[in-house]
Order: sequence, then C-alpha cells, then structure tokens
Amino acid sequence: MKKKINMKALAAELNLSTATISKALKNSHDISSETKKRVIALAKQLNYTPNPYASSLRKKTSHTIAVVLPEVADNFFSLAINGIESVAEKKGYHVLIYLSHEKFEIEKAIIDDCSSGRVDGVLLSVTRETTSSNHIQKLQAANIPIVLFDRALENFKAAKVVTNDYESGYLATKKLIENGCKDPVFLSISASLSLSNQRAEGFKKALQEAGIHNRKENAIIHFSDFSNEQIFSQITNLITSKKRPDGIVASVERLATILYLICLERNIQIPDEIKVIAFSCTENAPIFNPSLSTITQPAFQIGKASAEILFKSIAKENYNINNEHIIIPSKFNERKSSLNKEKKNH
Amino acid sequence: MKKKINMKALAAELNLSTATISKALKNSHDISSETKKRVIALAKQLNYTPNPYASSLRKKTSHTIAVVLPEVADNFFSLAINGIESVAEKKGYHVLIYLSHEKFEIEKAIIDDCSSGRVDGVLLSVTRETTSSNHIQKLQAANIPIVLFDRALENFKAAKVVTNDYESGYLATKKLIENGCKDPVFLSISASLSLSNQRAEGFKKALQEAGIHNRKENAIIHFSDFSNEQIFSQITNLITSKKRPDGIVASVERLATILYLICLERNIQIPDEIKVIAFSCTENAPIFNPSLSTITQPAFQIGKASAEILFKSIAKENYNINNEHIIIPSKFNERKSSLNKEKKNH
Repeated sequence: MKKKINMKALAAELNLSTATISKALKNSHDISSETKKRVIALAKQLNYTPNPYASSLRKKTSHTIAVVLPEVADNFFSLAINGIESVAEKKGYHVLIYLSHEKFEIEKAIIDDCSSGRVDGVLLSVTRETTSSNHIQKLQAANIPIVLFDRALENFKAAKVVTNDYESGYLATKKLIENGCKDPVFLSISASLSLSNQRAEGFKKALQEAGIHNRKENAIIHFSDFSNEQIFSQITNLITSKKRPDGIVASVERLATILYLICLERNIQIPDEIKVIAFSCTENAPIFNPSLSTITQPAFQIGKASAEILFKSIAKENYNINNEHIIIPSKFNERKSSLNKEKKNH
Repeated sequence: MKKKINMKALAAELNLSTATISKALKNSHDISSETKKRVIALAKQLNYTPNPYASSLRKKTSHTIAVVLPEVADNFFSLAINGIESVAEKKGYHVLIYLSHEKFEIEKAIIDDCSSGRVDGVLLSVTRETTSSNHIQKLQAANIPIVLFDRALENFKAAKVVTNDYESGYLATKKLIENGCKDPVFLSISASLSLSNQRAEGFKKALQEAGIHNRKENAIIHFSDFSNEQIFSQITNLITSKKRPDGIVASVERLATILYLICLERNIQIPDEIKVIAFSCTENAPIFNPSLSTITQPAFQIGKASAEILFKSIAKENYNINNEHIIIPSKFNERKSSLNKEKKNH
C-alpha cells in the first residue's frame, strides 16, 4: 500500500505543525502568505486531497443531516421525512435516511457512525427497544446537534418534538367507551417508549374514570417481538379468546392493519363486534373496510419543526438546543371503525 | 526525479484517450482485447503504478452503500429497502437512503454527491422525469458500482433488476377485458420511464387483441405533475367525464388509492361502475373497500438481488457488473375491485 498523503505527512515534510497546515489550506489569515504558498505547492505536488470526514469533523461542511428512523413503512415516517426535507431543501442540505428496524444495536451503530462527522446534525426517532441514552450523549459530546422527534426518551435532556400522546390516548379511549365499549384493550408498541407509555397512561385514565377495572394491568398488551408474524399471532390469540375485548386502541398503524386482516379472516365484524381506533397518518383510512378512525399525528409538522430546530443549532454555535421542547397536538378523525350501531345507521 | 508515468502518459504514448487507458487497465468489456494487451504491455514496460489518491478513492473503506429512491410512501420501496438491508446487514454495511422526490435535479445532485467517494456503491431507482444518463455514467467512470432497480433507463448499459412489466400490464388488462370492461384506461406514472412504458405497451397489446380502439392514444393518461392535488384533479376529471372508463390499470399504488378516494366521494361503485387493478405491494389490499386486485411486484426480492449484485462488484475489482440483467416476475392477485358481477356473487 502506498503511503497516504494526509496533513500529518505534509506537516512532517515541511517541518510545520498539522494545525499550521490545516490553517494554511483554509487560507487562514493567521498564516503568512509565504507559508501558505509552500503548503499549497507541496499539497499539489503530492496530490493531497482532504479527507471528507476529517474535514467535516472540524468544520460544518458535509451539508448533510441524518434522519434515523425505526422504519419507513409507517406513513407517519414518510410524511415526517417530507416535513424534514421541505426545510433541508431550502438550506441546500442533503438528507440521509438510516433505518434502525426497531433494533437498538443498529440504532447505536448508526449514531456512532454519525459521530464520526459524516453529518452536521441528526434527527432521531428511537427504536421500541431503546432505553439507554449513552449513544446520544456521545453524539452531543462530539458537538453534533440532535433532535429527538415523535419517539423521544423520557428523563433525558435533549431537544424534543412530539405530539400530545397522553391526551390523545385518553381521548381515543373515552370515545370507545362513549360508543359502548365496556372492555377495551390497548395495543402497545413498547414497554419502555415514552410515546407508547404516555398513550397507555391516557388509556388507563379513561378506564379509571369510567370505572372499568376488569382486566387491570392486562388491558395493556405488549408484543414480545415486533415481526408481523408475532403481532399476527398475539392479536389472533387475543381476539379468538373467550374474553375477546370489544374495543382496541392501536398505538401504531401496523397493529391496526394486522387486526383488520385477522378480523377479515375470522369474519369478526368491525365495529359491531370490536371497535378500533388507531394512531395513524395513513391517507387510506377512509378507503379501509370499514373506514378507520384515527388519531392523526401532525407528522409533516413534527418533521418540519424538528428540522428547523436542528438548522438553528447548525447555524449558531451557542444555541442552547437541548432546551427546545415542542408539542404539536394530534387530531381525532372519527370514521366507521369506532362507531356504535345507532350512529352508524344515521 | 524520473518522469512520472501516469495514465495520461500512457495515453499519449499509445495515441488513445485516458478514458480508454483507464478502462483497459480495469479490464472493461468496452475495450477490445487487442487494445487491452497493448495498454497492459506498455504499463508493465514503463513500470506504471496507479496514482495513490486515485487508488485510495477506489479503495472501499466507507462500508456504506447508498439507495436512491423517488419516494418511500409506496410500499414497493419500503419492502425493497428491507431486501437490500437483509444483504447489507450480513456484510456489515450501512445503508444510506436518499430521496429524490421524483425530481431529476435532486437525483442528479444526490448521484454527484455519491461520486465523491462517500459510498462504496449505489442502488438507484430513477425518478419519473429521468431521461438522461450522464450523471450515472459519471458515477460509473468514478468506478463506483451502480445497480438500477425497478425503474431503470431504457437503452442504457448498466446492471438492472426489474420485474416483467410488459407481461404484467398485458395480463392485468386482459383480466379487465375478460371481466367485462369494454373501455379501460391506463394511468401512467411517466411518459419516459421504461417501467411505465412497458406496462403501457402490455396494456395496448391486450386492447389490440380485443379489438378495442375507441380511445386510441387517449387510453393512456399521463400526469403533468405528480403531486397528490394534480393526480386528484386529473382523475376526477376522467371519471366524472361523459365518457367515464369502465376499467383502470394503475401503474403505481398511489394512483389507485387516490382513485378509490374519489370514487368514495362521488359515490361511484367499484367494481360495478369501474373496475380497478393496480401495480402495488401493499399488504393492506385485502382490507380496502372493496379489496384491491393487484399486480404484486416481488419488491423484497428485487431489493435483495440488486444488493447481491452490488456487493459482488464491491468485492471483485474485475466483475463485469454492467452485464447483469435480472427479471423477477410479478404475481397477479385477483380481489373484488376487478371482478364482474357473476363472479362477485359466487
């Protein structure tokens, strides 16, 4: 292998410090024009080109931000990406999308990769497994700004843009109960995720207010893994059990669509036998059979607000990004899947 | 110091272009074996060694590949990403996803960014606007391997992994005609995209065989832009016109879901008043109202096969990647949206 021409090699050859070489190549006024000429001449002669990662570590020049997501099949994330890119495009930035596939180990490896200076900032929605924040702290320590969006970590100081998960979980459940449900169940995406726990807390509050205590802790269903097969099997067990619930609040879209597929297979009628409300951004909710009642998160706006905070931080060295905490409320869209019979017939 | 023997010197000596020298040294099939022999003989004779910077550019050290997509909201792409990542994960590679949002200018900027050596290889599905291949040729010239998948450019030499678009377009249309359509229309995603044109050619062939000539060229609908608003407005015009078609073949998922939303609004019955078949990978097709007949592309397999070819090329300097051309067939899934009344009642 040939000797690599880096700044260290240039410094050794010219008997200068690497700092001087670096400043000379950036045409800094700290360096005499004579030294600059010598450095540039040698750099040309030896065909030196800067290492893109090393130089972006020192200067914000990658003109790239990373978006780290658990998945893209959920419409929330494709809409959030659009919101992020609407901001990045104006700034002339590239957006790199990394998928963690809901695995903490992958998320950690991605964030470590981002720490190397490949990007100027990171927007992160954590996996359902993420409980530790060490990898994020490492990024913050490397002075790379990060904003957590939608799925943030509780009790961790960072910029966050989320929706009103607790209130929305409460509202959805209250609607089910108003429409006749006496035994609803909450399908949780994670036992540790703030978003899922907040939604579940809202669910529990509505049950408590209505005096519904029959399932106690079992009214919240957790999934041991999050493959389609596992979700399919656990939901099938739930709705073919003797004690089938009469209402479902699904904390994410996929839980609701799999529930629909199972009900179709088993000939279980939504909403007459089981009512459904899902946290979902799908534009297809009106054309589902029956049309799906949704808590529609402001996905585009969450993405946009997150990117705006990130770019403020990229532009201003002293901006205190970790103080940012924005909550953008969701909207309830009632459709057929959660109606009671009387309303349905109107 | 000895005169430096570089590619330019070899080119001058042999009266060839430096591009030819470069290709000959890489054993490219573009170059005759006779020329290769001459170049290699002279390179040996003059003790030519590659320029260290150029060779480090070619050295694969980023452990990252780029996937460049027009969008992620379409289920085809989220499934294809899963196929790609199933291969990359085993190789210990990061996958960066870039979105071109169907804009050629963005695609070009992304591919140029990839040319800088940020990634070891690129998987590309082009935008609906892409007609030129210059940006891709630049990437190939920089010796960064690329595979075009799903949406490839016609008449351009590159590795390609696609589905049987012509046969699938033909089959879908034939089904509509068998089920009673006398005046079907094809919703095209692009007037220039190979994928869309192939599907449209299959559509035309089926019409021709059935002796259906009433709309002539107007049986293919192109969209002037691809925003939801524009698609909504053009499809609304089509299906509220006096000459409403009685069948639709949608070249991509979004065209079908928007059609469903319009029919719902206008109270137009699918399939009784208009039958629909869409090229789509959505797992939600069975829970649409009515369930959607689909030409289901092998999205995961297309992603996987593309990544396998790319990694072969990354591993082997002399692998002739541009000869790869894989076709993985789609499957027709008949559901209610395309049935005729008799079949529906069974």
